[in-house]
Amino acid sequence: MAFLKVVPLEEALEVIESFPLERRVEKVPLEETLGRVLAEDVVSPIDVPPFDRATVDGYAVRAEDTFMASESEPVKLKVIGEINAGDTPTVELKPGESVYISTGAPLPKNADAVIQFEDVDREGDEVIIYKPAYPGLGVMKRGTDIPSGKLLLRAGTRLGFKETALLSAIGFSEVKVFRKPRVAVISTGNEVVLPGTELRYGQIYDINGRAIADAVRELGGEAVFLGIAKDDKDSLKELILKGVECCDIIILSGGASGGIRDLTSSIIGELGKVYIHGIAIQPGKPTIIGLIDGKPIFGLPGYPTSCLTNFTLLVAPLLRKLLGRESEVRKVKKRLAHKVFSVKGRMQFLPVKVEGENAVPILKGSGAVTSFIDADGFIEVHENVEILDGGEEVEVTFFG
Amino acid sequence: MAFLKVVPLEEALEVIESFPLERRVEKVPLEETLGRVLAEDVVSPIDVPPFDRATVDGYAVRAEDTFMASESEPVKLKVIGEINAGDTPTVELKPGESVYISTGAPLPKNADAVIQFEDVDREGDEVIIYKPAYPGLGVMKRGTDIPSGKLLLRAGTRLGFKETALLSAIGFSEVKVFRKPRVAVISTGNEVVLPGTELRYGQIYDINGRAIADAVRELGGEAVFLGIAKDDKDSLKELILKGVECCDIIILSGGASGGIRDLTSSIIGELGKVYIHGIAIQPGKPTIIGLIDGKPIFGLPGYPTSCLTNFTLLVAPLLRKLLGRESEVRKVKKRLAHKVFSVKGRMQFLPVKVEGENAVPILKGSGAVTSFIDADGFIEVHENVEILDGGEEVEVTFFG
Repeated sequence: MAFLKVVPLEEALEVIESFPLERRVEKVPLEETLGRVLAEDVVSPIDVPPFDRATVDGYAVRAEDTFMASESEPVKLKVIGEINAGDTPTVELKPGESVYISTGAPLPKNADAVIQFEDVDREGDEVIIYKPAYPGLGVMKRGTDIPSGKLLLRAGTRLGFKETALLSAIGFSEVKVFRKPRVAVISTGNEVVLPGTELRYGQIYDINGRAIADAVRELGGEAVFLGIAKDDKDSLKELILKGVECCDIIILSGGASGGIRDLTSSIIGELGKVYIHGIAIQPGKPTIIGLIDGKPIFGLPGYPTSCLTNFTLLVAPLLRKLLGRESEVRKVKKRLAHKVFSVKGRMQFLPVKVEGENAVPILKGSGAVTSFIDADGFIEVHENVEILDGGEEVEVTFFG
Repeated sequence: MAFLKVVPLEEALEVIESFPLERRVEKVPLEETLGRVLAEDVVSPIDVPPFDRATVDGYAVRAEDTFMASESEPVKLKVIGEINAGDTPTVELKPGESVYISTGAPLPKNADAVIQFEDVDREGDEVIIYKPAYPGLGVMKRGTDIPSGKLLLRAGTRLGFKETALLSAIGFSEVKVFRKPRVAVISTGNEVVLPGTELRYGQIYDINGRAIADAVRELGGEAVFLGIAKDDKDSLKELILKGVECCDIIILSGGASGGIRDLTSSIIGELGKVYIHGIAIQPGKPTIIGLIDGKPIFGLPGYPTSCLTNFTLLVAPLLRKLLGRESEVRKVKKRLAHKVFSVKGRMQFLPVKVEGENAVPILKGSGAVTSFIDADGFIEVHENVEILDGGEEVEVTFFG
């Protein structure tokens, strides 16, 4: 394996950007689209409502027939029928005629107003009207809510319950959404075991597998946790090949040992190509990025906070791109709660907790599980900055 | 059916509060808990790390053996073995001894420091040390990250990827979470049909079924959409009984016709008890609340915005209670963008859109699908208020 130099973050991001992954689209039944991202602009194929619709229970009339009505000289119209919601009326109003109509029912031909039954009297087959109805009274006109041809939703919209309801309103039973990228998640380390097993002395429970798999799922991707690879070539290679077979992206997170890094790198080199072996950021120096069969593979650091920081910086933007969610804001400007010191010469990412308008640095060291639990995200400290003062404006990137 | 009087909102909420529903708890495998709500306080059963752990690759030593070391008079220690991550060491250091140790490995007995291999020289079975190591150098002490017995997460916490990772870190493979309430969703109306079918003249596509089912799912509940009941007793009764059988809560949303309301009410009266038939709010006057076999049943208005407003006011708090999510903030204070008029004598809920610091009223009428699509939630206008001025502070309740 040729040694690669440690590169700046920008170069790593350019490499990832250049990977040949494409957003894929799939058609999904409407009832399964909640939370998915629309892959097509949606234009209404119909008018909503699709017909002039009564908005009250009462009498459908030709408004002009009522223009002369008054308390002292009411107008009498003949009631020639009844239309209920769901009916397909064939009746047509001639001058002097009306029909009884219920809310939601389509108006008969030539009717242009519906007078509430509370406002009229009924005598046999006649309705007695005491004041004029204007055209449109008690009517929701065809297409006034949504006209056919109107652009309703744009590709890239995340579908909440309001959007799925809107799609239902215009008759969509299937929708094109972006396919969920499938991400293989592999933990590594001879000392790492799955929760639920008894710990032998010297062993620790896996953290990164769960963190990365669930972070992928929270982003909207599909995670396939493949288990824990031991620090040997066969075990690592087996799981990497499984990942390449089942998934679009493969993420390994290192055990503590540096040996895994070299093994991972040599296996990727054997099966595909290593593009990045080390990034000039803290944490993240040991991060590996490669490609096998056109599928990106990431080797992330073992310490949970470092792992999650590098996932957020490198993998999450790729997932968001595949999911059509690039535009979602994951950053917020805050004031640094107190002074922090950084190491000059390397871009550094410090975990912080957001408290009101403040970003409070979490200074527990990358090895602590609690530092990523207490933190909401991280701030970037440029490589030529040694001190950030309390009160300075900083940009917080949320994890995930 | 006895006619019930229209009651104030508070009374309706008290009735719902009195319903005999209880939060239920279930044990779920950790990998299925993302997004669920914790039903138990979680106390760490173990120290993390569970042993004194090397944080660098190097030599484990008794620090006191190195106190005299200097560049000119280095200390030589005998290397009596090697410990790798995942090993269960049995070796014990005697004065003058050390072992080679890799990052993540447990320290041998009597060792209290690890010196990085870059800082020493190795000659045969001896390591040459040029400066003193202090106790704790290169070591993460047992329990420093999470001590056994520490309260880590409280019941009521929504589990994100950070929390599931923390649970994994302390060895939990199963977690107690609140059971998802199952909600039966029924649409009604002779004129209402499912999307995907051809519209006959006089028909419209269902909106509320999708809106309510997906709002329930967004809240964290399980929705079972049972279809569309016709305006006849048999059809309604059949679906209501199905709902009572499969679910904890039943939600009907009215077609346009008032007849369904009476039918629903009489069926609930027959199978159980009607508690509320009409609430003094706008929209929501026709809302029905009852109980069948101890299961709450809600008859919500047919217009989508009215339906969603009443769902938010009446059903969502109940679901949140069952899900252990009462504490989640669903309200925000904003300034009204412009003057609005209201009807005195009835509590009114106006749909609004949140734009920066403003709440912009959406004045399209409750019949419009677009009014609930454009709105984020609603504001409450008290029954003795006729005019709300632009710039006034209002509280926006988000839909859902």
